[in-house]
Amino acid sequence: MSSESTGPVRGKRPPQGQPVVDRALSLLGAFTDRRRSMTLSELARNAEMPVTTALRLAARLVEWGALERLDDGRYVVGVRLWEIASLSPRGHGVRQIALPFMEDLYEVTRHHVLLAVRDGRDAVLIERLSSRNAPSVAYRVGGRLPLTQTAVGLVLLAAATRRFQDEMVSEPPELEPGMATFTPDELRRQLVDVARTGLAVVHRSAPSATVSVASPVQDADRRTVAALSILVPDGSTSPQAIAPAVRATARAISRTLGYRHEKFDGVHIRPDLEAD
Amino acid sequence: MSSESTGPVRGKRPPQGQPVVDRALSLLGAFTDRRRSMTLSELARNAEMPVTTALRLAARLVEWGALERLDDGRYVVGVRLWEIASLSPRGHGVRQIALPFMEDLYEVTRHHVLLAVRDGRDAVLIERLSSRNAPSVAYRVGGRLPLTQTAVGLVLLAAATRRFQDEMVSEPPELEPGMATFTPDELRRQLVDVARTGLAVVHRSAPSATVSVASPVQDADRRTVAALSILVPDGSTSPQAIAPAVRATARAISRTLGYRHEKFDGVHIRPDLEAD
Repeated sequence: MSSESTGPVRGKRPPQGQPVVDRALSLLGAFTDRRRSMTLSELARNAEMPVTTALRLAARLVEWGALERLDDGRYVVGVRLWEIASLSPRGHGVRQIALPFMEDLYEVTRHHVLLAVRDGRDAVLIERLSSRNAPSVAYRVGGRLPLTQTAVGLVLLAAATRRFQDEMVSEPPELEPGMATFTPDELRRQLVDVARTGLAVVHRSAPSATVSVASPVQDADRRTVAALSILVPDGSTSPQAIAPAVRATARAISRTLGYRHEKFDGVHIRPDLEAD
Repeated sequence: MSSESTGPVRGKRPPQGQPVVDRALSLLGAFTDRRRSMTLSELARNAEMPVTTALRLAARLVEWGALERLDDGRYVVGVRLWEIASLSPRGHGVRQIALPFMEDLYEVTRHHVLLAVRDGRDAVLIERLSSRNAPSVAYRVGGRLPLTQTAVGLVLLAAATRRFQDEMVSEPPELEPGMATFTPDELRRQLVDVARTGLAVVHRSAPSATVSVASPVQDADRRTVAALSILVPDGSTSPQAIAPAVRATARAISRTLGYRHEKFDGVHIRPDLEAD
């Protein structure tokens, strides 16, 4: 029974055993937003391995706590994995620092507030604050967003290397309903613009007409580590009106991450001289 | 070079290769709150395996995205693992549903609001809302709390089987500074009380004098899936004053999870007859 579906060597037991690790990882990778619980045979099918292999590996993962087994025998992702994952600096770390600021932004605007980081060729949503009554959005925490079609994506892509940008710009985008798509030339202009202004604005017509305004979150080394955005019903508020709040909040998070902004070139008003 | 430190069979290469998976998991398990980034040799030491084994396994984990390698060569937990972990129903799932309600509770009280689930012999904190200026607390999201010494822990323990309760009650608690500890008899009485009232109250004197009030979150099958608590400076507010807000919020989350409460036995006031 050969099962080297994910390993580099097919149909042959490799000497060092790494493909066993790959198979275990592919069991974890079989879980998606739409497949949050699976029977053993679903798990085996989606991870592309024999049921006996899946059973053996799933047992190890359950024992460690990476998976949990429900009363009905279905497998789900375990709390122990969630606990370790909460130590991810780019996932939970940035989120922990950003959350109080995001709450402030949410409180003054009452619109969806999103935080995303780049992972490979996608953005991953690491936090979203929404009121229970806010219009529906397409993204959930832990979900992936396209780099070339979303405001947070453009902010993250604008901070990437020129070579990676060229690669993404020339790649035909997967069309999602109602999503803004740009020609390669438009996209290149956008990225230059975003890098210059520190702001990306993207309109979307489905699942509801919305406009997103995003701004970069930068660390002590001036690297863009995340993108913060606000998502409002299109027509309700002009992007220009909410942009300052998004930029100010992104700067506040960056400052807490150690980013030192350019010299302050405004004027400090003495509070005792200010009108009430 | 023997490295079967976590496998059941020591010093012998096992036929089915599962211990390779165990070793990969122990690499993940080497990350803790205080060890969020490690060099290869630190990783190998903490996971108790030879450096060569750690290097080989870490490379697989990096390739999949469970780990990430920083510019300085240190390893951290990766965003991809965080993404999969966000599918954990007991971790992120409950949290997603609870978060808006927790925000409401935070907004009306301005105190720390915590949500925890049970994992084995501990509670795991899955969400905490705090203002940037709130008094320091001992727990971080993803961290573990003792079942027998915290309000959320008592709520979770009160919902466990009698056999598990007996086991935990008779186990001598690890003493943490300032933490409430109970004799086995006190603990048993507490658990009966918590089960009857749906409320646990615990005082703590360090790192600051606080009182926690916790209440169970229950699902459609009337199982306690999480505990919600609020943590206030001791002396500032009486536990009796905040208990109703905690219970009401825990019930609201339970209702959203499908829990059907007992028949409403109050009186509906017609809004048009109410005073302004």
